[in-house]
Formats: sequence, structure tokens, C-alpha cells
Amino acid sequence: MKRLRTFIALAAVPLILAGCGDLSNSSMSTNSGSSKSGSTQLTGQSTDSDYEGVIQSGHYQVSKSRGVTNTQDSGNTYNLKSFENGMLSVSKKVFSTKKYVFQEGQYLSSTTVQNWLDRKSKSNTTGLNPTDNGSKSATKRNPIYIQALEEQDYMTQKNNKLSLGGVTIGIAVNSVDYYKKTQYGATYETKITQAQGEAYAKSAANTVLKRLRQKSALKNVPIVIAVYRQASNDSLIGGNFLVYSTNKAGSTSVSKWTPLNVKNYTFPLSSGQSSPNSNDASSFSNFKSQVENFFPNLSGVTAQAQYDGKSLAGMHVNITTQFYSQTEIINFTQYLQTTAQKYLPSGVPIDITVSSTDGIQSFLSRAKNEKKFTSHVFNSY
Amino acid sequence: MKRLRTFIALAAVPLILAGCGDLSNSSMSTNSGSSKSGSTQLTGQSTDSDYEGVIQSGHYQVSKSRGVTNTQDSGNTYNLKSFENGMLSVSKKVFSTKKYVFQEGQYLSSTTVQNWLDRKSKSNTTGLNPTDNGSKSATKRNPIYIQALEEQDYMTQKNNKLSLGGVTIGIAVNSVDYYKKTQYGATYETKITQAQGEAYAKSAANTVLKRLRQKSALKNVPIVIAVYRQASNDSLIGGNFLVYSTNKAGSTSVSKWTPLNVKNYTFPLSSGQSSPNSNDASSFSNFKSQVENFFPNLSGVTAQAQYDGKSLAGMHVNITTQFYSQTEIINFTQYLQTTAQKYLPSGVPIDITVSSTDGIQSFLSRAKNEKKFTSHVFNSY
Repeated sequence: MKRLRTFIALAAVPLILAGCGDLSNSSMSTNSGSSKSGSTQLTGQSTDSDYEGVIQSGHYQVSKSRGVTNTQDSGNTYNLKSFENGMLSVSKKVFSTKKYVFQEGQYLSSTTVQNWLDRKSKSNTTGLNPTDNGSKSATKRNPIYIQALEEQDYMTQKNNKLSLGGVTIGIAVNSVDYYKKTQYGATYETKITQAQGEAYAKSAANTVLKRLRQKSALKNVPIVIAVYRQASNDSLIGGNFLVYSTNKAGSTSVSKWTPLNVKNYTFPLSSGQSSPNSNDASSFSNFKSQVENFFPNLSGVTAQAQYDGKSLAGMHVNITTQFYSQTEIINFTQYLQTTAQKYLPSGVPIDITVSSTDGIQSFLSRAKNEKKFTSHVFNSY
Repeated sequence: MKRLRTFIALAAVPLILAGCGDLSNSSMSTNSGSSKSGSTQLTGQSTDSDYEGVIQSGHYQVSKSRGVTNTQDSGNTYNLKSFENGMLSVSKKVFSTKKYVFQEGQYLSSTTVQNWLDRKSKSNTTGLNPTDNGSKSATKRNPIYIQALEEQDYMTQKNNKLSLGGVTIGIAVNSVDYYKKTQYGATYETKITQAQGEAYAKSAANTVLKRLRQKSALKNVPIVIAVYRQASNDSLIGGNFLVYSTNKAGSTSVSKWTPLNVKNYTFPLSSGQSSPNSNDASSFSNFKSQVENFFPNLSGVTAQAQYDGKSLAGMHVNITTQFYSQTEIINFTQYLQTTAQKYLPSGVPIDITVSSTDGIQSFLSRAKNEKKFTSHVFNSY
């Protein structure tokens, strides 16, 4: 009965969409029905490689399980951004940004996701994590494997109506499960190898796929399932996606997993560590030495680098320093613009944020195929 | 003797500069002498409307009175940015960014500036602020008029050498002087009207000009003096420049003051307040109402607006909200891009920062004559 009611409600919504086919035209500005109640708009698209999002009656269509991943990933917020961005990246391999519109997950509620993430027990038969075996020993207990589970919907447009075109499910497994032996006691760790985590998630993925197929709306759409491995809480980068599978409409078990080879590093590398390409690490270290002594007080220079296989996919550089005037900020930023172009690896997207104890002060970025960095100094009247 | 030594040191510096004439070429990348000790480089220029800055032996040439304004303006940090940016704006009216290079003030030391900012007394004969008349009464005491004083140097290039082409002095007067009657007691306020502050600063400017002319290096360069009025500590915007004067080489008293008509406002305006152009305020309020209800949780939307006379000169929009996923940030930013273009005043530079309790999340900007906003979502691997 409940499912039926939802269906009627959806069918009754007058989906007024200005664009059709080419999504780049379906932005707000061409949509005259923006104030009508029940109307659907799209957010507009920043670049061709971003999905537009769905706005209902002037409000963003938030996820039915809004906030669950947020809470689950509070131990290391890098995981949150990394997990959700990674889900978008995997989705783009299957659902083209030119054809599909992004919608926050509408089929799994907070309660459902929370139950799935809990341990299986008599009172929680849908739990995807193993039952509590009673042990408090780091190596003998059953750890919590699955830390987060998120749904993203991909919509297609036809005759100015949106309909579900596919779903992506991200399953995040722990590399370390943090637990307490007593309520306010110390935190202990159970380590989970990549192989263990991946195997557990793959098996859970089959269960999830079967459950999703029981929902009538999800019976006949492709469902992508991607497995992510969380970084530990002390990491300065997020984790990474290990494998994904595209499951054709109607299929109830995963037939094939495609491996992903994306890995994240922090620069400077810690001693003994190596990155897939040592040139990038030395480029960064040249840049760092040009920058850190710019002022009499030392500036901190670190970076997150992402690799796809052996090749650098992008870099987020983080610079912190103490400024003593607005003109120092302006001139430092100008210096970074030329220095970054000279020293940092070319051909990949890079951004640089410059912060002081008062927060961000300036910001530079360069898109994949550009040569020059653009810059912005944050200002105030 | 000390002055002589400084002169020799300056003359001995091998000023290796790659560019000459057209500053846009004199960036780092064309400068092969960057690692030589004692060499001079420029920072490079982000845009034609910014000054390049001076780098000595790989280090930024910091101000001889570095940090003084910082300390003086700690009550309201908006004043700091506003004062220093305003000094640059005034300087650009006199010293073209195409011909001049910016150098942090090298002629007034921290001690000098600090003494000038203190009260005149037997032990501090150079104090520009009035002697203590002993009164603790808000209306009878002599307030501290001059809160900050800053020097900026403008250099010209010839035959690959930099030489001083002009100086700008900013004098910041209080609108409110905060004082204590006892060391750890309550803070009291002496209000200073614009007329009082301006008159006091103009008179001090003559004293300052005479003193500067006594330094041999400053005898024969144009000296710009600009008077700024500080915003009170509870203000959400900085103060504004009132007048400036350009004093020809050699002149020892100010002959003419040019009024400036720049004023800052915060949007939404408080009740009863009005801005020079009511259209801008209503544009902003339309934008605000489109944005604040985007998520189920309310988003805060405020702005700083700057007017030059009756016309809007620019806007900094500040949006704070609680996000529950990276995809919410991405979609909100895309929505802002179209909404800002539709609702916010056109033809002026505008930037928008989007923050959560975790700091800045995304950022949009549009230059003066552009139509579309560019956007950037801050990310993490």
C-alpha cells in the first residue's frame, strides 16, 4: 500500500522541464515555472563533466537517507568527500553527464540504510554486518566490515519528464574497525585487509542487489555497485574505490567486477614510502622548497595526489602560513601562480588553497589541459 | 652613518631583472637568476590591474614595520583588509600598475611607526596622537585619533634595476576609540566624528610628510597620503578612505586633498537603513530568498557591498549552510551559478563563498564585465 501511494504521488507531480535532450540548456534561467508548486527544475551545469541535480518546487531533492553517511564517516571526513566524489566518478563511466541528471538517493530511507549497516541480529535481520560473536579480542571478534552505504539516482529526461535511468550504490568497507570494550573505555582496532574487505563487500553487494530488485521502481534499471575501502582515521587522505560492477536491468546477482586502480598519496611522502611516479614527488618537493621560505616565517606545504594506475590524476595542494598584511597575501598568490606553473606536474588538474589561522586567504587552480593557473584572493570591504 | 650604510647596501645589490618596460613579462619564469644570492625577482602579475611585488634572494621583501597594522587592527580584522586594499586602490590612481612595482614599506621601521602611533609625551616626542590630558571621561579625554599608519613603496624599473618611484602612506583614524579606565577594567568608548577624525589626520599628514622628506631617499619622490576612517569593532565591514593627496617630489606640505566617495554596506540592510541604490538591495533580497530555502535546513545569506558614489562597485556574498554530502555541495554550487547570474546586479565584480562549519566548501566569482559566474568546489581525495 505504501509503495502504491508513493507511485501515485510521483505520477501526479507535474514535471515541468525546460530543456530536453541537451542538458546544458535546461538550467533555471530558461525555466519559467520555477515558482510553481510541485514543479521540477534542474540546478544548471557548471561544466559538461558535472551532472545537473534535481530541484523540486524550489527545494533541492535531498536524499531519503540524508546524513547517514555523514554520521558514519565522522571519524575521518576525508572519507566522506572521497567516497561521494568517487561514486560520481564511477557513475560517469556508466551514466553519461550529457544524458543523465543526478538525483540524491530516493529509494533507501535512513532507517533502511541504518539497519543494513548494523550487525545482523534477531531484532535486525537485514543487517549486512556480521553477528556479534561475543569476543572483544581484536583478532577474534567479528569486525564491522561495512561502514557506509549510499544510493545515487541517475535520471533521464523525455518529453519534459524525469524518470529513473539507473542507480549507483556505494559500499564502503573499513580498513580498520574502531571499537570499545566498555562504553566509555579506550578505543581498540581490528584491522581488515583489502582482500577480506573486498570479499565481504562483494558478497554483501549480491544481497543488496537482490533487495533492490524487490522494489518495483528498481526492477528494470541498471544498478551500478562500487566497493570503496575507507582510509583509517589518522589518514590525511580518503580511501579509494576497489571494484565496481554494472548490473543490467533485472539482473539479481553480480556477474562481473571491474577493478579500479585509483590510489591517493600525501606529499611529501613519508620516508620509505614511494609513489607510482617519482617525478611527481620530486616536482612537488622542488615547488615546496621554492615556497616554504618565501616569508621569514615558514609556510607549510603539503599535497594530496591521486593516481590512476601509474599516472597522476590530480593534486590538491595545501599551503598554510601566517600573513601580516593583505599585500603579503596578494603577492604570495602571484608568486605561487608562476612558481606552480614552473614546478608542479603539467597536464593534470591542480588546485592550491592558501590559508592562515583566519581561514582561507587565496586559491589557485588549473584545469587538466590548461597551462596557466587562475587565482583568487579572498577579500573583504 | 646608519643611513649611509643602508645606501651602500642597496647600491651593492645586483638587481637582476628579466623584464623591462612591460611588466607583464618580468615574471619568475623568464628570470634565470632566481637562485643567485642577492638577486631581485618579481612575483609575476595575476592581472594587469595588480602590481607585481619584489622578491629579494628568493624571499619576499617584507615591510620594515611588518605586523604593526596587524596588531593595531586586531579589534576588527575587516579594517585590516579594507585599509590595505584601499591603499592599493588609491595608489593605482597615481602609480600605474603597468609602470610601477609594489614593494612593502622599507623606510619606516616598526619602532618608528609604533612611536608615531603612540601619544605624544616627554619620552615620545614623535607621537602623532595627542598627549594624555589625565581625564578618563569619554567626552573630556583626548582620544587616540590615529590607529594605524602604513607605508607602501612603488618602484620603477630601468636598465634592469629597481628604484623608488613613489610612496603611499595610509593614515587610519578611529571612529570609536576604545579605552579602559583601569588595567583589567571594562572597555569604554570615545566617539570621534568623521569631521574631527579627518581634520586630525590631515594635520598629522603634514607632520608625516615633513618627516619623510628628511629621509634622503624620500626627498624627491611623489608621496601619496590617504586618510582612512576605521569601522567600529562591532561592524561587519571595514571602514573607508575619506580623502587623499598626491604630493609632488620635494613638497613638504599638503596643498590639496581629493575627496573619495567610497562606502561599504552590509546586505540585508538593517531596518531603516538605505543604500545608495535601492535596486541592488532588492536584487540581493530576491537572490537571498531563492537561496536560503534550497535545503530543508536554512542557509544564511549576507553580503558586503561597496559603493563609489551612487554606483555599486562590487559585492562579496557569504553563504553558510550545513551540508550532508559532497553532492549537496556540488549541486548547491551549480544552482548558485545560475541563480546569481539571474538575480544579482550585473556589471560589477561579485564573489560568493559557501561555507559550512568545516570551513569553505565552494566559491563562485564573476569579473566586472563578465556575464557568467565561474565556480569551484573545494575537494579532497
